[in-house]
Amino acid sequence: MTNRHNQPTSLRNFRHASLLVVEDNKDHWFLIKMALEQSLPEVEPMWAANREEALQYLNSCLLNGTDLPKLILLDLYLPKREDGWELLQEIKDQSSSFKQVPVVVLSYSNAQEDITESYFHGSTSYVTKPADAQAWMEYTQKLRTYWWETVTLPSDRYMT
Amino acid sequence: MTNRHNQPTSLRNFRHASLLVVEDNKDHWFLIKMALEQSLPEVEPMWAANREEALQYLNSCLLNGTDLPKLILLDLYLPKREDGWELLQEIKDQSSSFKQVPVVVLSYSNAQEDITESYFHGSTSYVTKPADAQAWMEYTQKLRTYWWETVTLPSDRYMT
Repeated sequence: MTNRHNQPTSLRNFRHASLLVVEDNKDHWFLIKMALEQSLPEVEPMWAANREEALQYLNSCLLNGTDLPKLILLDLYLPKREDGWELLQEIKDQSSSFKQVPVVVLSYSNAQEDITESYFHGSTSYVTKPADAQAWMEYTQKLRTYWWETVTLPSDRYMT
Repeated sequence: MTNRHNQPTSLRNFRHASLLVVEDNKDHWFLIKMALEQSLPEVEPMWAANREEALQYLNSCLLNGTDLPKLILLDLYLPKREDGWELLQEIKDQSSSFKQVPVVVLSYSNAQEDITESYFHGSTSYVTKPADAQAWMEYTQKLRTYWWETVTLPSDRYMT
């Protein structure tokens, strides 16, 4: 999408772009990585296997002066859903330095409680996990279309 | 998108579905309404011209026991950007009863400050306003594909 001011939104979104996947299942990470490499080759996929690794990675971006990920994909059950919600709250806390990064929660769970609680904790959207490699590919293509080609993602170049 | 548990996500998303547009420019509201009626005929578009009307509408949903909107489209400059951010913060406040509703900020502004501050205040995504009726139609189609056909939206049937 272009706007009346200047360049297409997508040019900004792709600049220094990485995406953090928080996923405790290594096989799922491989599936997601493969789908992302096909649908979003311009964006570097990063992996954290748990809450601690995710926070460590985000803090290292701030310390090293590298860009924060443009988006976070967060598996809710890490392996307990409380682990996912705890991380979500830490990222979205008022005093957090990562608060601006959109977090998409992924889960096989279709329970209304899991969905609505995730939104309450600051999830930007909730997606039930695709079932196989082909469905992952379709999903990451939609991720590209919405987040990278339609929306303007936040940038590290402006910090409050 | 379907999942291993049951029905397609979209069936839930379309049930009792409305969408609240907060827009102080009546001509823009007509454009948005027209595009939504084409792309999302199953979803009732509601209009609030300012912060007060938006809060009044959201509170009336709670009082009357009708469903909250599935999504809010919020024009940032209402007419000042501070008005948009104030409403965004009120919706996303820890104690808010509407906190779970995703809010997509819309604006002609492409200023990095407007974009990143909106994410800090809890915007779920930021979209630069389409320029004409055709572009609005393309945008609302993307809105349908992502929010109604890919994501699982929160439901009023589960309240914390």
